[in-house]
Amino acid sequence: MEDIGNKIYNLAVELFPIYRSITGDGARETLRIIKRHLPLLKIFKVPSGTRCFDWIVPPEWNIKDAYILDPKGKKIADFKKNFLHILAYSVPIHKKVSLKELNKHLYSLPKQSNAIPYTSSFYEKRWGFCIAHNQKEKLKQGFYSVHIDTTLAPGYLNYGELLIPGKSRKEVMFSTPLCHPYCANNGLSGLAVTTYLAKWIMSIRHRYYTYRIVLVPQTIGSIYYVSQHLKYLKRHVKMGFNVTCVGDDKTYSYMPSRSGNTLADRIARHVLKHIYPEFIAYSFLERGGDERQYCSPGVGLPIVSVMRSKYGTYPEYRTSKDNLSFISPRGLYGGYSAIKYCILCAEKNEILKSTVLCEPHLGKKGLYPTLSIKEKKQKINTIKDVIAYSDGTRDLLDIADILEIKMWDLLEIVEELKRTHIVNSHR
Amino acid sequence: MEDIGNKIYNLAVELFPIYRSITGDGARETLRIIKRHLPLLKIFKVPSGTRCFDWIVPPEWNIKDAYILDPKGKKIADFKKNFLHILAYSVPIHKKVSLKELNKHLYSLPKQSNAIPYTSSFYEKRWGFCIAHNQKEKLKQGFYSVHIDTTLAPGYLNYGELLIPGKSRKEVMFSTPLCHPYCANNGLSGLAVTTYLAKWIMSIRHRYYTYRIVLVPQTIGSIYYVSQHLKYLKRHVKMGFNVTCVGDDKTYSYMPSRSGNTLADRIARHVLKHIYPEFIAYSFLERGGDERQYCSPGVGLPIVSVMRSKYGTYPEYRTSKDNLSFISPRGLYGGYSAIKYCILCAEKNEILKSTVLCEPHLGKKGLYPTLSIKEKKQKINTIKDVIAYSDGTRDLLDIADILEIKMWDLLEIVEELKRTHIVNSHR
Amino acid sequence: MEDIGNKIYNLAVELFPIYRSITGDGARETLRIIKRHLPLLKIFKVPSGTRCFDWIVPPEWNIKDAYILDPKGKKIADFKKNFLHILAYSVPIHKKVSLKELNKHLYSLPKQSNAIPYTSSFYEKRWGFCIAHNQKEKLKQGFYSVHIDTTLAPGYLNYGELLIPGKSRKEVMFSTPLCHPYCANNGLSGLAVTTYLAKWIMSIRHRYYTYRIVLVPQTIGSIYYVSQHLKYLKRHVKMGFNVTCVGDDKTYSYMPSRSGNTLADRIARHVLKHIYPEFIAYSFLERGGDERQYCSPGVGLPIVSVMRSKYGTYPEYRTSKDNLSFISPRGLYGGYSAIKYCILCAEKNEILKSTVLCEPHLGKKGLYPTLSIKEKKQKINTIKDVIAYSDGTRDLLDIADILEIKMWDLLEIVEELKRTHIVNSHR
Repeated sequence: MEDIGNKIYNLAVELFPIYRSITGDGARETLRIIKRHLPLLKIFKVPSGTRCFDWIVPPEWNIKDAYILDPKGKKIADFKKNFLHILAYSVPIHKKVSLKELNKHLYSLPKQSNAIPYTSSFYEKRWGFCIAHNQKEKLKQGFYSVHIDTTLAPGYLNYGELLIPGKSRKEVMFSTPLCHPYCANNGLSGLAVTTYLAKWIMSIRHRYYTYRIVLVPQTIGSIYYVSQHLKYLKRHVKMGFNVTCVGDDKTYSYMPSRSGNTLADRIARHVLKHIYPEFIAYSFLERGGDERQYCSPGVGLPIVSVMRSKYGTYPEYRTSKDNLSFISPRGLYGGYSAIKYCILCAEKNEILKSTVLCEPHLGKKGLYPTLSIKEKKQKINTIKDVIAYSDGTRDLLDIADILEIKMWDLLEIVEELKRTHIVNSHR
Repeated sequence: MEDIGNKIYNLAVELFPIYRSITGDGARETLRIIKRHLPLLKIFKVPSGTRCFDWIVPPEWNIKDAYILDPKGKKIADFKKNFLHILAYSVPIHKKVSLKELNKHLYSLPKQSNAIPYTSSFYEKRWGFCIAHNQKEKLKQGFYSVHIDTTLAPGYLNYGELLIPGKSRKEVMFSTPLCHPYCANNGLSGLAVTTYLAKWIMSIRHRYYTYRIVLVPQTIGSIYYVSQHLKYLKRHVKMGFNVTCVGDDKTYSYMPSRSGNTLADRIARHVLKHIYPEFIAYSFLERGGDERQYCSPGVGLPIVSVMRSKYGTYPEYRTSKDNLSFISPRGLYGGYSAIKYCILCAEKNEILKSTVLCEPHLGKKGLYPTLSIKEKKQKINTIKDVIAYSDGTRDLLDIADILEIKMWDLLEIVEELKRTHIVNSHR
Repeated sequence: MEDIGNKIYNLAVELFPIYRSITGDGARETLRIIKRHLPLLKIFKVPSGTRCFDWIVPPEWNIKDAYILDPKGKKIADFKKNFLHILAYSVPIHKKVSLKELNKHLYSLPKQSNAIPYTSSFYEKRWGFCIAHNQKEKLKQGFYSVHIDTTLAPGYLNYGELLIPGKSRKEVMFSTPLCHPYCANNGLSGLAVTTYLAKWIMSIRHRYYTYRIVLVPQTIGSIYYVSQHLKYLKRHVKMGFNVTCVGDDKTYSYMPSRSGNTLADRIARHVLKHIYPEFIAYSFLERGGDERQYCSPGVGLPIVSVMRSKYGTYPEYRTSKDNLSFISPRGLYGGYSAIKYCILCAEKNEILKSTVLCEPHLGKKGLYPTLSIKEKKQKINTIKDVIAYSDGTRDLLDIADILEIKMWDLLEIVEELKRTHIVNSHR
C-alpha cells in the first residue's frame, strides 16, 4: 500500500523541477512524462488567440532565465534557484532601474516574510519578481540591473485527455490542474495522484462507468475544455472530481458542487465520513479550483473535490513553502486512497429491490443460523437490514447511510443477496 | 380505570400456564380462551406444508413432557417446572448421553447465569434443553438420561381474526403475536391488551374505521396472513399497530414503520409525546416484531408499535425472568391506554376547513366573551387558533401539533365549531 | 436621519389627544390630519349596519364626557383627564349607584395596580369605567353619581386608503390600525410611521410595485376592507405589512404570515437578521393584529409584521402606561427604517441569470484586478459569488442569504453586472 504512496511521491519529485505555466514547454514536457505512465493519454494543442466563451487563449510564454543584479553586481531573485522568483507571464526586459522603480515590480508577503509568493499576470502585460519580504526590506539604494529572458509569442496551450471506456457511456470525470509551478500540494499532488488513479481505473475489470481524465491548465484550460464538450459533458458526466491538494497529511476536506446534492457529493461525504470523520466540509463559497468553471451556472456539472488540506487554508499555499517537503508519500497515498473509495462506491452503487414478499427465509438459503438464540441474533441483522431497505427506491449508498455502515463493507452481503436472487439491482 | 388493568392482568395470569408455540394445542387453547372474551373471533387453521411466499408452514409440534435425569437419578431441566427448559420444536429423544455430549444440547446465558433462556429451532431438527448457566456449570461428569416426549407431525398452524366493521371500509389493523411461551411482557401482554382493546373498540358508537385484529404466531403466522390478504390490506389498511411488550411499567417506546411518516407514526408520536414526553423513539433498524413482515418492501403497511419496554432492551427479555412479576396491572393499563388514545385520535382525525372568511364573530355565536379585557383574552385563543389553521389542508392532528395541545383536548371545541357551522370537516 | 424620527414623533404627539375608537369623530379627525400629509389619501365611510362576512358594522359611537362623582362629590375616573377611563362603546347613563353596584362596572388590573386598562365592549351594550386598581380599592361605601355622556346611533365607520401606482400592478400592501385611543406604541406608532413610509414610497423613482396603504379600525375595519376587495387582493398583493407597535426602542420583533414562507416573511427575516440579529421571531399562534383577518383561511394574504416590542409582550400594553413616554423619536425611526429596508429589498429583488458560460473574464471588463496576488483575491470574491449563484432559479434575496451579506450591500454589484451584461434579471 505505502508502496503506491512512494511511487506517487517519486512522480511528484520527477515533475517538480519542470517550470509549468498555463502554456509553454514545461506543460508539454509534463504531459510527455505522464504519457510514459499512461500511454493512451492524448495530448492536444490549442492555438493562441482561440476564443472560448468569454476568454481568449493567451500567447505562449517561455522562460530561459531571469535574475536581478544588485548595485554590487550580486545575483538576487534568481529564477534558476527558485522558479517562483519570476512573476509568471512576465514580459522580457533588460534594463537598469533605481530601487524605487524596482520596488514597483517586486511582489512579497509582509506577513510571511521569508516565503516567496507565487504570482502571475496572464492577461495584462507586466514584468516583475517575487521575493521574500525580509530580503526585499534589506535592499539598499542604488541601481539594479534587471534581466528577464522570456518570450511571449503566438504558440499553443496544451492539455491531456484520457478516456477509459466502461460498459456504460455514463461518465465519471477527473480533472486536475496542469499549471502551478513549484507548488507541491496545490499543483503537483493532483497530477501525480490522478496519474496513479488512472492506472488503477484501467485495472478495474468490468468497469461500469466510462472515465474521462483531463489534465488542463487551471481556468483557461478548463474553460476551453468545457467550451469544446459542453453538450456531451452535460449529458454523460454523472459525477466528477477536481483533483487538487491531495498531497499533505494534515486533514481531509471536501468542496461540494454548487448544488451540493449530486451523486458525487453524496459519495464524497460518505467516504470521508467513514475514513476521516473529522473531515472539513467547506462551502461552495470557499471554492477556488476548476469547479468554478465546471459548476458555473449554465454548465452545472456534478463535480466536487476530495482533498487533504484545501488551497487557501494553509499558510504555505501559493508560496515557496508548498514544496516537496510539504507533501509526503503517506499524504499522497491518503488522497489517492480516498478518491479510490469514491470510485469503488460509484462502480458498485445500484438501486436494490427485494424480490421476496415479507422477509425471505434466510436459513433455507444458508444465510441464517437455523438455531435462534438471543446472543447470536445480532450477527445477521445487517443482512436483514439491507433487505428491509431494498425497496426499489433506494440505492446502496442510501442504505449504507441509513445503516451507518461503510458501503464497501456491504458489498459482500449484496453479492450474496444477488447470487441467491433475494434482491435484484438496477441503475 | 385501574380496574381494567386488573382485568387485563387476570387474563395474562390465565394464559400464562399454557405452553404456546407457533403451532400446537397451546395456541388453540389460547385462542379458545380469548374467544370467550371476543365471541366473534374467528379461528383459522393452516395445514403443515402450506407455502407462503418464501416460507413453508412447519409440522405441528406438541409436547407432553421433557426432563433430564442426572447421574444420581435426580430430575433436572424439568419442563413441568418451567416451560422454557425445552428447546422449542425439539425432536423427541430418549437416551443416555455423557456430560460432554449433553453439553452440546444445553443452551444457557453465561452473562445472565441464573436465567433460563427461551430458545427455539423451528426449521432445523434439533433437540435440546435450556438451563440457567450456573446450573449448567455445576453438572458433574457421568451419564445423563435425556427424555423428550414431543411429537412433530403434519397438523395445523392456528390463528385468530376479528373484523369489527365501521362506517368506512378503511381499516385500522392490530396484530399481536400468539406464540412466545412463558414470556409475559414479550408475549402475553400483547394478547391480553389486544383482547381488551377489541372489547373497547366494539363499544365505540358510530365507529368510522373498520378494525382488523389478528392474533398470529410471529413471523410464519404474519407471513401467512399477509400472503392471503396482501392486495386487500395494501388497499384498505390506513394505519396499524403491532401490539407487543405492553405490560411493564418502566417506560414507553415507539417503533416506527419503515417509512416513518404514516398516519400511524404521526398518531403514535403525538400520543406518546403527550402522555409520556420521555418516551423512547427507536429506529426501524431496531425492529424485531411482525413489523418486519408488515413493513417489508413490497408489503409496506403503515404499521408501528406503541410499547412499554421494547423487546431486546431489557435483560429479562427472552428469559425466565420475563414472567408475571415483570408485568403489572398498572403497566398493562398504561399500554392499553396509550393505544386507546391512538384509536381515539384515528377516529376523530379529520381535515378541517373554516367556512367563514376572516375571523368569525364568535361573540354572536355565544363562543366569545363580549367584553374584551386584557386578562380574559387568552382563554379563547385556542378556539381562534383551531379556526385559523382550519384551512382545508390540515387535519386535526396537524393542528394539535401546531398548537402543542393534546388532540383529545381539542375535540370539544371542534364539535362546537362544527355544530355552529364555523368549520366543516372531511376525511 | 434622526430628523425623520422627530417628525414621526411629532405627528404622534399631534394625534395623541384625539379620542379614536372604531367609529366616531375621532377617527374622522385623525384621517383629516393624515390627509394633510398625504393629500391623495381617500377617506371612505361605511354606514352602520353594513354586513361584511360574519360581521355587522356597529352604530357610530361618540363621547362628550364621562366621570363619576364620589360620595363626597369629588370627580373620579374623569374621561377628560384620561381617555382610558371610559369603557369604549359605553352606553350613556346618568344615575346614582351604590359602591357594590358601581364595582360591577369598574375594570381594573389587580396585577398592575396603578395602571388604567384599555377596555371595550363594541358588540354588547354595557356601561363602565376603567380605573387603576389601587384607586378602586380605596373607594369608600356610599352612593356614587355616574355620568356617561355618549351617543350610540346610526352613523359611519371611516377608513383611509392610498394607492401609489408603480410599473407593475403587483402590490405591496400596508395596513395600520386606526383605533386604539391613547395607546402610543400599540396604536399611534403605526399611524405615524405608515404616514412617513407613504411619503417616502412616493419619492421612489421608477417604483416597481404598486403600493396599497390602508388605515382601518382594527378587526371590523380590516374585515370590511377585505370583504370589498378580496378577489383583487388575493390576485395582486405579493407581500404586505401590518404596521403596529413600531414606536419603542427596546427590541425588534417579527410576526410571520400564517404560512410563514411568503416573500414578505423572507424579506422581513432577512432585514431583521441584518439590522438586529437578536430580533424575536414570534409564532403565528401569538398573533393579535389584523393579520388575524388578512392571513385567515380563505383570505391568506402574504402579510407579516415587523415590529419593535410586540403587542401583548410588554406590561404597558393596553394600559395608560403605553403613552408618549413609552415611544420615542429613536424608536419610531427604528421601526420606520426596518420597514423601509423591507421595501427596498422588495423593489430590488429579481431573479438573476448569468449570461456567460463558465466564469466571465472580469479583468477584461474592468471588474477584476489583472494581477493575481494572494492577498488581493478575496476582495472580488463577492462579485464572483453573485455570478456563481445567478443560475436563473434564485432571486437576489436567496443569493444574499447564501452569501450572508445584506441584500442592499449587493445592489451596486448587481447594477454593475447588469450594466456589463454579465447577468440579466427578471421577476
